[in-house]
Amino acid sequence: MEQNKKRVMLTVAYDGTNYNGWQVQPNGVTIEGVLNEALSELLKEEITVVGASRTDAGVHALCNVAVFDTCSRIPAEKMSYALNTSLPEDIRIVDSKEVDEDFHPRHCESKKTYEYRIVNSEFINPVKRLYCHHTYLKCDVEAMQKASKYLIGEHDFKSFCTVGAQVETTVRTITDLEVSRKDDEIMIRVTGTGFLYNMVRIIAGTLLDVGTGRWEPAYVKEMLEAEERSAAGPTAPPEGLCLCSVEIMDRNDF
Amino acid sequence: MEQNKKRVMLTVAYDGTNYNGWQVQPNGVTIEGVLNEALSELLKEEITVVGASRTDAGVHALCNVAVFDTCSRIPAEKMSYALNTSLPEDIRIVDSKEVDEDFHPRHCESKKTYEYRIVNSEFINPVKRLYCHHTYLKCDVEAMQKASKYLIGEHDFKSFCTVGAQVETTVRTITDLEVSRKDDEIMIRVTGTGFLYNMVRIIAGTLLDVGTGRWEPAYVKEMLEAEERSAAGPTAPPEGLCLCSVEIMDRNDF
Repeated sequence: MEQNKKRVMLTVAYDGTNYNGWQVQPNGVTIEGVLNEALSELLKEEITVVGASRTDAGVHALCNVAVFDTCSRIPAEKMSYALNTSLPEDIRIVDSKEVDEDFHPRHCESKKTYEYRIVNSEFINPVKRLYCHHTYLKCDVEAMQKASKYLIGEHDFKSFCTVGAQVETTVRTITDLEVSRKDDEIMIRVTGTGFLYNMVRIIAGTLLDVGTGRWEPAYVKEMLEAEERSAAGPTAPPEGLCLCSVEIMDRNDF
Repeated sequence: MEQNKKRVMLTVAYDGTNYNGWQVQPNGVTIEGVLNEALSELLKEEITVVGASRTDAGVHALCNVAVFDTCSRIPAEKMSYALNTSLPEDIRIVDSKEVDEDFHPRHCESKKTYEYRIVNSEFINPVKRLYCHHTYLKCDVEAMQKASKYLIGEHDFKSFCTVGAQVETTVRTITDLEVSRKDDEIMIRVTGTGFLYNMVRIIAGTLLDVGTGRWEPAYVKEMLEAEERSAAGPTAPPEGLCLCSVEIMDRNDF
Protein backbone atom coordinates (compact mmCIF):
# COMPACT_ATOMS: atom_id res chain seq x y z
CA MET A 1 0.00 0.00 0.00
CA GLU A 2 1.22 3.49 -0.78
CA GLN A 3 2.45 5.64 2.05
CA ASN A 4 -0.23 7.98 3.45
CA LYS A 5 -2.86 5.64 2.17
CA LYS A 6 -5.16 4.23 4.79
CA ARG A 7 -8.08 1.82 4.91
CA VAL A 8 -11.22 3.19 6.56
CA MET A 9 -14.18 1.19 7.86
CA LEU A 10 -17.66 2.72 7.97
CA THR A 11 -20.59 1.39 9.96
CA VAL A 12 -23.65 2.22 7.89
CA ALA A 13 -27.34 2.25 8.87
CA TYR A 14 -30.01 2.60 6.22
CA ASP A 15 -33.67 2.39 5.39
CA GLY A 16 -33.58 0.24 2.24
CA THR A 17 -37.09 1.20 1.07
CA ASN A 18 -35.99 3.64 -1.60
CA TYR A 19 -32.90 1.77 -2.84
CA ASN A 20 -32.20 -0.97 -5.35
CA GLY A 21 -30.18 -2.74 -2.70
CA TRP A 22 -26.55 -2.33 -1.69
CA GLN A 23 -24.60 -3.17 -4.80
CA VAL A 24 -24.00 -0.72 -7.64
CA GLN A 25 -26.19 -1.54 -10.65
CA PRO A 26 -26.56 -0.10 -14.12
CA ASN A 27 -30.14 0.94 -13.25
CA GLY A 28 -31.42 2.35 -10.01
CA VAL A 29 -29.96 4.07 -6.99
CA THR A 30 -28.03 1.84 -4.56
CA ILE A 31 -26.54 2.35 -1.10
CA GLU A 32 -23.06 1.56 -2.39
CA GLY A 33 -23.48 4.02 -5.26
CA VAL A 34 -24.62 6.84 -2.97
CA LEU A 35 -21.71 6.16 -0.58
CA ASN A 36 -19.15 6.12 -3.42
CA GLU A 37 -20.46 9.44 -4.67
CA ALA A 38 -20.54 11.14 -1.25
CA LEU A 39 -17.04 9.85 -0.37
CA SER A 40 -15.54 10.82 -3.73
CA GLU A 41 -16.98 14.31 -3.31
CA LEU A 42 -15.76 14.64 0.28
CA LEU A 43 -12.26 13.21 -0.23
CA LYS A 44 -11.67 14.61 -3.75
CA GLU A 45 -10.59 11.24 -5.14
CA GLU A 46 -12.46 8.35 -6.71
CA ILE A 47 -13.63 6.06 -3.92
CA THR A 48 -15.15 2.59 -4.22
CA VAL A 49 -16.41 0.96 -1.04
CA VAL A 50 -16.57 -2.78 -0.36
CA GLY A 51 -19.49 -3.92 1.78
CA ALA A 52 -19.81 -6.76 4.26
CA SER A 53 -23.38 -7.61 3.22
CA ARG A 54 -24.78 -6.87 -0.22
CA THR A 55 -28.36 -6.47 0.95
CA ASP A 56 -31.25 -6.71 -1.52
CA ALA A 57 -33.64 -3.98 -2.61
CA GLY A 58 -35.93 -3.01 0.27
CA VAL A 59 -33.79 -4.67 2.97
CA HIS A 60 -32.68 -2.47 5.90
CA ALA A 61 -29.49 -2.34 7.96
CA LEU A 62 -28.57 -1.05 11.37
CA CYS A 63 -24.84 -1.57 10.90
CA ASN A 64 -23.59 -2.82 7.58
CA VAL A 65 -19.83 -2.47 7.19
CA ALA A 66 -18.06 -0.79 4.28
CA VAL A 67 -14.34 -0.24 3.75
CA PHE A 68 -12.37 1.89 1.31
CA ASP A 69 -8.85 3.18 0.79
CA THR A 70 -7.99 6.85 0.75
CA CYS A 71 -4.99 9.19 0.78
CA SER A 72 -7.07 11.90 2.47
CA ARG A 73 -5.64 13.60 5.54
CA ILE A 74 -9.07 13.86 7.12
CA PRO A 75 -8.90 11.69 10.27
CA ALA A 76 -11.00 8.55 9.77
CA GLU A 77 -12.98 9.30 12.95
CA LYS A 78 -14.15 12.66 11.54
CA MET A 79 -15.44 11.22 8.28
CA SER A 80 -18.77 10.03 9.71
CA TYR A 81 -19.76 13.58 10.68
CA ALA A 82 -18.72 15.05 7.35
CA LEU A 83 -20.51 12.33 5.39
CA ASN A 84 -23.76 12.63 7.33
CA THR A 85 -24.10 16.28 6.31
CA SER A 86 -24.18 15.31 2.63
CA LEU A 87 -25.89 11.90 2.68
CA PRO A 88 -29.68 11.58 2.38
CA GLU A 89 -31.50 11.06 5.69
CA ASP A 90 -32.20 7.39 4.98
CA ILE A 91 -28.47 6.57 5.11
CA ARG A 92 -26.46 7.37 8.26
CA ILE A 93 -22.81 6.70 9.03
CA VAL A 94 -22.85 5.49 12.63
CA ASP A 95 -19.08 5.19 12.95
CA SER A 96 -15.86 5.58 10.95
CA LYS A 97 -12.40 4.38 11.90
CA GLU A 98 -9.08 3.31 10.44
CA VAL A 99 -8.48 -0.44 10.10
CA ASP A 100 -5.59 -2.69 9.05
CA GLU A 101 -4.71 -2.22 5.41
CA ASP A 102 -5.43 -5.87 4.61
CA PHE A 103 -8.84 -5.98 6.27
CA HIS A 104 -11.62 -7.09 3.91
CA PRO A 105 -15.20 -7.17 5.27
CA ARG A 106 -16.19 -10.29 3.30
CA HIS A 107 -12.91 -12.21 3.45
CA CYS A 108 -12.66 -12.22 7.21
CA GLU A 109 -14.18 -14.28 9.97
CA SER A 110 -17.39 -12.60 11.05
CA LYS A 111 -20.78 -13.24 12.52
CA LYS A 112 -23.85 -11.55 11.09
CA THR A 113 -27.20 -11.21 12.77
CA TYR A 114 -30.38 -10.59 10.81
CA GLU A 115 -33.88 -9.93 12.12
CA TYR A 116 -37.00 -10.70 10.15
CA ARG A 117 -40.20 -9.08 11.46
CA ILE A 118 -43.75 -10.21 10.74
CA VAL A 119 -46.91 -8.46 11.89
CA ASN A 120 -49.44 -11.21 12.55
CA SER A 121 -52.83 -9.56 12.90
CA GLU A 122 -55.85 -8.67 10.84
CA PHE A 123 -54.39 -5.29 9.81
CA ILE A 124 -50.88 -3.95 9.89
CA ASN A 125 -50.28 -0.58 11.52
CA PRO A 126 -49.38 1.55 8.46
CA VAL A 127 -46.25 2.96 10.11
CA LYS A 128 -44.84 -0.59 10.22
CA ARG A 129 -45.60 -1.50 6.61
CA LEU A 130 -42.15 -0.63 5.26
CA TYR A 131 -40.31 -2.49 8.04
CA CYS A 132 -42.39 -5.63 8.63
CA HIS A 133 -43.97 -8.33 6.51
CA HIS A 134 -47.67 -8.82 7.24
CA THR A 135 -49.80 -11.92 7.40
CA TYR A 136 -53.32 -12.17 8.77
CA LEU A 137 -53.10 -16.00 8.82
CA LYS A 138 -52.83 -17.20 12.40
CA CYS A 139 -49.24 -18.24 13.15
CA ASP A 140 -48.26 -20.94 15.62
CA VAL A 141 -45.02 -19.55 17.04
CA GLU A 142 -44.29 -22.75 18.96
CA ALA A 143 -44.32 -24.73 15.71
CA MET A 144 -41.98 -22.15 14.15
CA GLN A 145 -39.65 -22.48 17.14
CA LYS A 146 -39.60 -26.27 16.80
CA ALA A 147 -38.88 -26.02 13.07
CA SER A 148 -36.08 -23.51 13.63
CA LYS A 149 -34.09 -26.03 15.71
CA TYR A 150 -33.43 -28.15 12.59
CA LEU A 151 -31.67 -25.24 10.93
CA ILE A 152 -29.21 -24.48 13.72
CA GLY A 153 -25.66 -25.79 13.17
CA GLU A 154 -23.60 -26.59 10.08
CA HIS A 155 -25.73 -27.76 7.17
CA ASP A 156 -25.81 -27.74 3.41
CA PHE A 157 -28.35 -24.93 2.87
CA LYS A 158 -28.69 -25.54 -0.89
CA SER A 159 -32.49 -25.71 -0.50
CA PHE A 160 -32.35 -22.29 1.15
CA CYS A 161 -30.44 -20.49 -1.59
CA THR A 162 -31.87 -18.81 -4.68
CA VAL A 163 -30.96 -20.86 -7.75
CA GLY A 164 -28.17 -19.42 -9.86
CA ALA A 165 -26.06 -17.99 -7.05
CA GLN A 166 -22.39 -18.72 -7.74
CA VAL A 167 -20.73 -20.02 -4.60
CA GLU A 168 -18.05 -22.65 -3.99
CA THR A 169 -20.08 -24.39 -1.35
CA THR A 170 -23.60 -24.09 0.03
CA VAL A 171 -22.57 -25.32 3.47
CA ARG A 172 -23.11 -22.66 6.11
CA THR A 173 -23.32 -22.48 9.90
CA ILE A 174 -26.19 -20.95 11.82
CA THR A 175 -25.11 -20.37 15.41
CA ASP A 176 -28.40 -18.97 16.73
CA LEU A 177 -31.95 -18.92 15.47
CA GLU A 178 -34.74 -17.61 17.68
CA VAL A 179 -38.41 -17.09 16.96
CA SER A 180 -40.34 -14.92 19.40
CA ARG A 181 -43.63 -13.09 19.58
CA LYS A 182 -44.39 -9.80 21.30
CA ASP A 183 -47.99 -8.64 20.95
CA ASP A 184 -48.82 -8.96 17.26
CA GLU A 185 -45.19 -9.00 16.09
CA ILE A 186 -43.22 -12.16 15.38
CA MET A 187 -39.45 -11.83 15.18
CA ILE A 188 -37.05 -14.31 13.60
CA ARG A 189 -33.51 -13.54 14.73
CA VAL A 190 -30.73 -15.49 13.06
CA THR A 191 -26.97 -15.38 13.57
CA GLY A 192 -24.39 -17.14 11.43
CA THR A 193 -20.89 -16.98 10.05
CA GLY A 194 -22.14 -16.62 6.51
CA PHE A 195 -25.37 -16.60 4.54
CA LEU A 196 -26.26 -17.64 1.00
CA TYR A 197 -28.21 -15.44 -1.40
CA ASN A 198 -31.74 -14.91 0.00
CA MET A 199 -31.07 -17.50 2.72
CA VAL A 200 -32.62 -15.53 5.58
CA ARG A 201 -35.70 -14.64 3.53
CA ILE A 202 -36.17 -18.29 2.51
CA ILE A 203 -35.80 -19.34 6.16
CA ALA A 204 -38.42 -16.73 7.09
CA GLY A 205 -40.77 -17.87 4.32
CA THR A 206 -40.32 -21.50 5.35
CA LEU A 207 -40.89 -20.86 9.07
CA LEU A 208 -43.99 -18.83 8.19
CA ASP A 209 -45.33 -21.77 6.17
CA VAL A 210 -44.76 -23.98 9.22
CA GLY A 211 -46.43 -21.37 11.45
CA THR A 212 -49.53 -21.22 9.28
CA GLY A 213 -49.79 -25.02 9.19
CA ARG A 214 -48.65 -25.82 5.66
CA TRP A 215 -45.91 -28.11 6.98
CA GLU A 216 -45.06 -29.94 10.19
CA PRO A 217 -41.95 -28.56 11.97
CA ALA A 218 -39.99 -31.79 11.38
CA TYR A 219 -40.43 -31.47 7.62
CA VAL A 220 -37.72 -28.77 7.68
CA LYS A 221 -35.16 -31.56 8.17
CA GLU A 222 -36.31 -33.16 4.91
CA MET A 223 -36.11 -29.80 3.15
CA LEU A 224 -32.44 -29.50 4.12
CA GLU A 225 -31.74 -33.06 3.00
CA ALA A 226 -33.42 -32.52 -0.37
CA GLU A 227 -30.69 -30.04 -1.34
CA GLU A 228 -32.86 -28.31 -3.89
CA ARG A 229 -34.51 -24.92 -3.77
CA SER A 230 -38.01 -26.16 -4.60
CA ALA A 231 -38.07 -28.25 -1.41
CA ALA A 232 -38.09 -25.22 0.91
CA GLY A 233 -40.67 -22.47 1.42
CA PRO A 234 -41.09 -19.21 -0.50
CA THR A 235 -38.71 -16.25 -0.28
CA ALA A 236 -40.36 -13.87 2.21
CA PRO A 237 -40.56 -10.24 1.01
CA PRO A 238 -37.60 -7.92 1.66
CA GLU A 239 -39.19 -5.24 3.85
CA GLY A 240 -39.26 -7.50 6.93
CA LEU A 241 -35.50 -8.03 6.86
CA CYS A 242 -32.87 -5.99 8.69
CA LEU A 243 -29.14 -6.64 9.06
CA CYS A 244 -28.70 -5.93 12.76
CA SER A 245 -25.05 -6.58 13.46
CA VAL A 246 -21.81 -7.57 11.80
CA GLU A 247 -19.37 -8.83 14.38
CA ILE A 248 -15.85 -8.93 13.00
CA MET A 249 -13.80 -11.53 14.83
CA ASP A 250 -10.45 -10.41 16.12
CA ARG A 251 -8.03 -12.05 13.73
CA ASN A 252 -5.69 -12.79 16.62
CA ASP A 253 -8.30 -15.25 17.83
CA PHE A 254 -7.62 -17.66 14.96
CA MET B 1 -82.85 11.17 9.52
CA GLU B 2 -84.27 9.51 6.43
CA GLN B 3 -85.29 5.91 6.68
CA ASN B 4 -82.60 3.47 5.55
CA LYS B 5 -79.99 6.07 6.30
CA LYS B 6 -77.39 5.05 8.86
CA ARG B 7 -74.38 6.62 10.53
CA VAL B 8 -71.17 4.61 10.28
CA MET B 9 -68.05 5.03 12.40
CA LEU B 10 -64.64 4.11 11.00
CA THR B 11 -61.50 3.56 13.04
CA VAL B 12 -58.65 4.73 10.84
CA ALA B 13 -54.89 4.11 11.12
CA TYR B 14 -52.46 6.02 8.94
CA ASP B 15 -48.88 6.95 8.27
CA GLY B 16 -49.15 10.72 7.92
CA THR B 17 -45.79 11.16 6.17
CA ASN B 18 -47.21 11.59 2.68
CA TYR B 19 -50.32 13.61 3.58
CA ASN B 20 -51.12 17.26 4.14
CA GLY B 21 -52.85 16.30 7.35
CA TRP B 22 -56.39 15.10 7.97
CA GLN B 23 -58.56 17.96 6.81
CA VAL B 24 -59.50 18.55 3.17
CA GLN B 25 -57.54 21.45 1.70
CA PRO B 26 -57.49 23.21 -1.64
CA ASN B 27 -53.90 22.02 -2.19
CA GLY B 28 -52.41 18.69 -1.33
CA VAL B 29 -53.67 15.21 -0.59
CA THR B 30 -55.31 14.70 2.82
CA ILE B 31 -56.51 11.65 4.76
CA GLU B 32 -60.07 13.02 4.83
CA GLY B 33 -59.97 13.64 1.09
CA VAL B 34 -58.76 10.14 0.30
CA LEU B 35 -61.43 8.62 2.58
CA ASN B 36 -64.21 10.72 1.01
CA GLU B 37 -63.16 9.58 -2.44
CA ALA B 38 -62.86 5.89 -1.56
CA LEU B 39 -66.21 5.91 0.28
CA SER B 40 -68.04 7.80 -2.49
CA GLU B 41 -66.70 5.29 -5.02
CA LEU B 42 -67.63 2.28 -2.87
CA LEU B 43 -71.10 3.46 -1.82
CA LYS B 44 -72.03 5.24 -5.08
CA GLU B 45 -73.11 8.42 -3.28
CA GLU B 46 -71.25 11.53 -2.22
CA ILE B 47 -69.76 10.92 1.21
CA THR B 48 -68.14 13.44 3.53
CA VAL B 49 -66.56 12.10 6.71
CA VAL B 50 -66.21 13.98 10.00
CA GLY B 51 -63.07 13.19 11.99
CA ALA B 52 -62.43 13.12 15.72
CA SER B 53 -58.95 14.61 15.43
CA ARG B 54 -57.86 16.83 12.55
CA THR B 55 -54.20 15.81 12.68
CA ASP B 56 -51.53 17.99 11.06
CA ALA B 57 -49.34 17.17 8.07
CA GLY B 58 -46.86 14.43 8.97
CA VAL B 59 -48.71 13.34 12.13
CA HIS B 60 -49.64 9.65 12.40
CA ALA B 61 -52.64 7.85 13.89
CA LEU B 62 -53.33 4.37 15.14
CA CYS B 63 -57.06 4.93 15.56
CA ASN B 64 -58.54 8.21 14.51
CA VAL B 65 -62.33 8.13 14.30
CA ALA B 66 -64.41 9.21 11.30
CA VAL B 67 -68.17 9.11 10.86
CA PHE B 68 -70.42 9.51 7.83
CA ASP B 69 -74.02 8.96 6.80
CA THR B 70 -75.03 6.60 4.04
CA CYS B 71 -78.09 4.97 2.52
CA SER B 72 -76.01 2.02 1.34
CA ARG B 73 -77.23 -1.49 2.12
CA ILE B 74 -73.66 -2.73 2.64
CA PRO B 75 -73.50 -3.74 6.31
CA ALA B 76 -71.33 -1.29 8.24
CA GLU B 77 -69.11 -4.12 9.54
CA LYS B 78 -68.19 -5.16 5.97
CA MET B 79 -67.13 -1.68 4.87
CA SER B 80 -63.64 -1.87 6.43
CA TYR B 81 -62.72 -4.86 4.25
CA ALA B 82 -64.09 -3.30 1.09
CA LEU B 83 -62.36 0.03 1.77
CA ASN B 84 -58.97 -1.52 2.50
CA THR B 85 -58.86 -3.06 -0.96
CA SER B 86 -59.07 0.39 -2.58
CA LEU B 87 -57.22 2.59 -0.07
CA PRO B 88 -53.46 3.19 -0.33
CA GLU B 89 -51.34 1.05 2.01
CA ASP B 90 -50.55 3.98 4.31
CA ILE B 91 -54.24 4.26 5.33
CA ARG B 92 -56.00 1.26 6.90
CA ILE B 93 -59.55 0.95 8.21
CA VAL B 94 -59.17 -1.01 11.42
CA ASP B 95 -62.87 -1.22 12.16
CA SER B 96 -66.26 -0.08 10.85
CA LYS B 97 -69.58 -0.18 12.69
CA GLU B 98 -72.98 1.48 12.84
CA VAL B 99 -73.45 4.15 15.54
CA ASP B 100 -76.35 6.26 16.84
CA GLU B 101 -77.56 8.70 14.22
CA ASP B 102 -76.77 11.69 16.46
CA PHE B 103 -73.24 10.62 17.31
CA HIS B 104 -70.61 13.27 16.43
CA PRO B 105 -66.93 12.44 17.06
CA ARG B 106 -65.98 15.97 18.11
CA HIS B 107 -69.18 16.96 19.95
CA CYS B 108 -69.10 14.08 22.37
CA GLU B 109 -67.30 13.33 25.59
CA SER B 110 -64.08 11.58 24.72
CA LYS B 111 -60.53 10.99 25.87
CA LYS B 112 -57.69 11.13 23.41
CA THR B 113 -54.20 9.76 23.94
CA TYR B 114 -51.22 10.99 21.95
CA GLU B 115 -47.66 9.71 22.00
CA TYR B 116 -44.69 11.84 21.06
CA ARG B 117 -41.44 9.92 20.40
CA ILE B 118 -37.95 11.33 20.51
CA VAL B 119 -34.75 9.46 19.65
CA ASN B 120 -32.08 10.83 21.95
CA SER B 121 -28.73 9.65 20.62
CA GLU B 122 -25.92 10.79 18.35
CA PHE B 123 -27.58 9.33 15.26
CA ILE B 124 -31.14 8.26 14.57
CA ASN B 125 -31.72 4.81 13.09
CA PRO B 126 -32.94 5.76 9.59
CA VAL B 127 -35.98 3.45 9.82
CA LYS B 128 -37.24 5.61 12.71
CA ARG B 129 -36.75 8.97 11.04
CA LEU B 130 -40.34 9.32 9.81
CA TYR B 131 -41.86 8.31 13.16
CA CYS B 132 -39.63 9.97 15.77
CA HIS B 133 -38.14 13.38 16.36
CA HIS B 134 -34.38 13.30 16.89
CA THR B 135 -32.11 15.25 19.18
CA TYR B 136 -28.49 14.49 19.95
CA LEU B 137 -28.57 16.90 22.94
CA LYS B 138 -28.48 14.93 26.15
CA CYS B 139 -31.96 14.88 27.73
CA ASP B 140 -32.62 14.70 31.47
CA VAL B 141 -35.78 12.60 31.57
CA GLU B 142 -36.23 13.14 35.31
CA ALA B 143 -36.38 16.90 34.75
CA MET B 144 -38.95 16.33 31.97
CA GLN B 145 -41.00 14.16 34.33
CA LYS B 146 -40.94 16.86 37.02
CA ALA B 147 -41.98 19.52 34.50
CA SER B 148 -44.81 17.37 33.17
CA LYS B 149 -46.52 17.31 36.60
CA TYR B 150 -47.37 21.03 36.29
CA LEU B 151 -49.38 20.37 33.14
CA ILE B 152 -51.63 17.65 34.55
CA GLY B 153 -55.14 18.75 35.49
CA GLU B 154 -57.43 21.55 34.31
CA HIS B 155 -55.51 24.62 33.16
CA ASP B 156 -55.75 27.48 30.74
CA PHE B 157 -53.39 26.20 28.04
CA LYS B 158 -53.34 29.48 26.08
CA SER B 159 -49.51 29.46 26.14
CA PHE B 160 -49.65 25.98 24.59
CA CYS B 161 -51.84 26.85 21.61
CA THR B 162 -50.75 28.19 18.24
CA VAL B 163 -51.84 31.83 17.92
CA GLY B 164 -54.85 32.39 15.68
CA ALA B 165 -56.77 29.25 16.58
CA GLN B 166 -60.45 30.10 16.99
CA VAL B 167 -61.78 28.48 20.14
CA GLU B 168 -64.30 29.57 22.76
CA THR B 169 -61.98 28.74 25.62
CA THR B 170 -58.37 27.64 25.96
CA VAL B 171 -59.08 25.76 29.20
CA ARG B 172 -58.40 22.05 28.80
CA THR B 173 -57.89 19.05 31.08
CA ILE B 174 -54.93 16.71 30.88
CA THR B 175 -55.72 13.54 32.82
CA ASP B 176 -52.38 11.76 32.31
CA LEU B 177 -48.96 12.83 31.16
CA GLU B 178 -46.05 10.43 31.35
CA VAL B 179 -42.47 10.78 30.19
CA SER B 180 -40.42 7.60 29.93
CA ARG B 181 -37.19 6.43 28.35
CA LYS B 182 -36.40 3.03 26.88
CA ASP B 183 -32.89 2.70 25.47
CA ASP B 184 -32.38 5.76 23.28
CA GLU B 185 -36.09 6.53 22.87
CA ILE B 186 -38.00 9.02 24.99
CA MET B 187 -41.78 8.81 24.93
CA ILE B 188 -44.21 11.51 26.02
CA ARG B 189 -47.67 10.02 26.45
CA VAL B 190 -50.51 12.44 27.12
CA THR B 191 -54.21 11.82 27.66
CA GLY B 192 -56.88 14.50 27.86
CA THR B 193 -60.49 15.28 27.15
CA GLY B 194 -59.56 17.82 24.51
CA PHE B 195 -56.52 19.45 22.96
CA LEU B 196 -55.89 22.87 21.44
CA TYR B 197 -54.24 23.38 18.05
CA ASN B 198 -50.62 22.09 18.25
CA MET B 199 -50.97 21.66 22.03
CA VAL B 200 -49.25 18.26 22.20
CA ARG B 201 -46.39 19.36 19.97
CA ILE B 202 -45.87 22.52 22.07
CA ILE B 203 -45.90 20.39 25.23
CA ALA B 204 -43.29 18.10 23.61
CA GLY B 205 -41.15 21.06 22.52
CA THR B 206 -41.37 22.58 26.01
CA LEU B 207 -40.52 19.34 27.82
CA LEU B 208 -37.58 18.83 25.46
CA ASP B 209 -36.32 22.33 26.31
CA VAL B 210 -36.55 21.40 30.00
CA GLY B 211 -34.79 18.09 29.28
CA THR B 212 -31.88 19.77 27.53
CA GLY B 213 -31.48 22.29 30.36
CA ARG B 214 -32.89 25.46 28.82
CA TRP B 215 -35.43 25.81 31.64
CA GLU B 216 -35.92 24.49 35.14
CA PRO B 217 -38.92 22.14 35.48
CA ALA B 218 -40.79 24.58 37.76
CA TYR B 219 -40.70 27.25 35.07
CA VAL B 220 -43.48 25.38 33.26
CA LYS B 221 -45.86 26.67 35.91
CA GLU B 222 -44.97 30.26 34.97
CA MET B 223 -45.43 29.42 31.30
CA LEU B 224 -49.01 28.35 31.99
CA GLU B 225 -49.68 31.47 34.06
CA ALA B 226 -48.31 33.78 31.36
CA GLU B 227 -51.21 32.80 29.07
CA GLU B 228 -49.34 33.73 25.93
CA ARG B 229 -47.79 31.52 23.28
CA SER B 230 -44.35 33.10 23.41
CA ALA B 231 -43.93 32.01 27.04
CA ALA B 232 -43.84 28.29 26.19
CA GLY B 233 -41.31 26.25 24.19
CA PRO B 234 -41.20 25.63 20.45
CA THR B 235 -43.65 23.45 18.52
CA ALA B 236 -41.89 20.09 18.16
CA PRO B 237 -41.92 18.69 14.59
CA PRO B 238 -44.91 16.59 13.47
CA GLU B 239 -43.23 13.23 12.68
CA GLY B 240 -42.81 12.33 16.36
CA LEU B 241 -46.56 12.59 17.04
CA CYS B 242 -49.10 9.77 16.87
CA LEU B 243 -52.76 9.74 17.90
CA CYS B 244 -52.90 6.44 19.76
CA SER B 245 -56.46 6.18 21.01
CA VAL B 246 -59.79 7.95 20.97
CA GLU B 247 -61.96 6.68 23.78
CA ILE B 248 -65.59 7.64 23.27
CA MET B 249 -67.36 7.85 26.62
CA ASP B 250 -70.63 5.98 26.88
CA ARG B 251 -73.20 8.75 26.85
CA ASN B 252 -75.26 6.87 29.41
CA ASP B 253 -72.48 7.64 31.84
CA PHE B 254 -73.31 11.36 31.92
